[in-house]
Amino acid sequence: MVDLSQFRFSHPIEVRYADIDVLQHVNNATYFTYMETARIQYFAEVLGWKGHWAELGVIIARADCEYKQPLVFGDTVKAYMRTSRLGAKSFDFAYVLVREEDGAIAASGSSVQVAYDYDQGGSIAIPEAWRDAMTTYEPGLKGEART
Amino acid sequence: MVDLSQFRFSHPIEVRYADIDVLQHVNNATYFTYMETARIQYFAEVLGWKGHWAELGVIIARADCEYKQPLVFGDTVKAYMRTSRLGAKSFDFAYVLVREEDGAIAASGSSVQVAYDYDQGGSIAIPEAWRDAMTTYEPGLKGEART
Amino acid sequence: MVDLSQFRFSHPIEVRYADIDVLQHVNNATYFTYMETARIQYFAEVLGWKGHWAELGVIIARADCEYKQPLVFGDTVKAYMRTSRLGAKSFDFAYVLVREEDGAIAASGSSVQVAYDYDQGGSIAIPEAWRDAMTTYEPGLKGEART
Amino acid sequence: MVDLSQFRFSHPIEVRYADIDVLQHVNNATYFTYMETARIQYFAEVLGWKGHWAELGVIIARADCEYKQPLVFGDTVKAYMRTSRLGAKSFDFAYVLVREEDGAIAASGSSVQVAYDYDQGGSIAIPEAWRDAMTTYEPGLKGEART
Repeated sequence: MVDLSQFRFSHPIEVRYADIDVLQHVNNATYFTYMETARIQYFAEVLGWKGHWAELGVIIARADCEYKQPLVFGDTVKAYMRTSRLGAKSFDFAYVLVREEDGAIAASGSSVQVAYDYDQGGSIAIPEAWRDAMTTYEPGLKGEART
Repeated sequence: MVDLSQFRFSHPIEVRYADIDVLQHVNNATYFTYMETARIQYFAEVLGWKGHWAELGVIIARADCEYKQPLVFGDTVKAYMRTSRLGAKSFDFAYVLVREEDGAIAASGSSVQVAYDYDQGGSIAIPEAWRDAMTTYEPGLKGEART
Repeated sequence: MVDLSQFRFSHPIEVRYADIDVLQHVNNATYFTYMETARIQYFAEVLGWKGHWAELGVIIARADCEYKQPLVFGDTVKAYMRTSRLGAKSFDFAYVLVREEDGAIAASGSSVQVAYDYDQGGSIAIPEAWRDAMTTYEPGLKGEART
Repeated sequence: MVDLSQFRFSHPIEVRYADIDVLQHVNNATYFTYMETARIQYFAEVLGWKGHWAELGVIIARADCEYKQPLVFGDTVKAYMRTSRLGAKSFDFAYVLVREEDGAIAASGSSVQVAYDYDQGGSIAIPEAWRDAMTTYEPGLKGEART
């Protein structure tokens, strides 16, 4: 079971007509766009990213999604997310997409991020400012902060 | 000059990360997605469309956009639209995309719609219910309602 | 290691400008669009789907992707896929996205499909015609066809 | 009538599942993505653009599309385009999207481009190398090259 009380961060997402595919529900790839939309907001609001693309030193190494309920035109989605693991060079995000109309969980997912130096072309240690921001923001994370 | 006082209808649109292209602003084709997002809401809110796709008997015959200001990540767009012409079988929508942060006009555009019977595969007269809804809703339209 | 000799089916995909995000490589969600593009072709070519959407009785229950190499504008992708598990009501696809220029594996992924009756709104046994087509087409699948 | 003999340049585009909207044909905004896909290839093949985004000094000022025939899943599109006007700081492209299966014209469109200096944030004269490339490549353009 998903425990939403672990999730401090959420971001609302409007289902656009263009998100609906020929089978009349939100396309499966678009769920990853919804998670991404939340993720970028999290970078801005929680990690202090200022909107300068060249400073967004992170690459996505893995992503997955479990589809539980369809989303249709007219739905509003609340995308919950949190940092679920904080390693030396990589960290995980967990996501839950909730259909606001009835509170149903439409999907859950995760992604693995790697801190990355685009100039040097390689992975780096997670910046201390990010680590501090995540451990401060995420109530359940402190014990595992350096695993 | 665009006179926004003619526009009763508007719909807010969040700029998603996925809308931004490699040149760091909202992709030119995505402006048409923004206009479409407003258009579908207009069908629901003004024309009484109930969300049944099979009953959305309209095809797009033409669309254009003039790009005036770039939209970047973090911007919120307000999409204004109105019925600007009401013919026998076709009608026009006018759009203005406003950057909410500073009120700048990011783009203006238009589209031509044709009432369409998907079962018979041909254009039809605009349904009276739509015609009534548009002429009632749009303050400036009454005089040209049957042109 | 990925063994491409297991994959009889592949489909070429052109990287579009619109697939590239602000970080100058193909957006992470778009990899799922690439896998979907191959999947629909597989339905047509291997499972005999004739392009009638109402008869495409399948829903996606899960999807994941491991990102190994970036894809940039100008790349051509070859999307390999195969049926990797065939259950009673559900079946798995495995995907490998290969960068054609140098043969590098850009990503691997998987998806879980459930045979679905849209009229009744529930899962059903995999149609025998699909089962036969998959076991005939996929050389490595026969032994596990009913697991 | 569209005279395709004026168009030296064309680029094939596969209709993806993700391009199809709930009304079972290619979404109207996606036609602009198809024109863009051709446009970027034209920059590479005709204007000698080398794939360095920072050097693609052009902004889109206007775009339009007339929709003539629907495109459905399984169609292959041939996107024809040409330079139709060459001004001091701006130039126009004309597009025709042809459905390869039967040669039907699915859409025609145009776009207005402005040569732009991103560092200085303003329009500039069309680079001579582009002007030369366009006038050399486009048979019908020479007489109007400096209008």
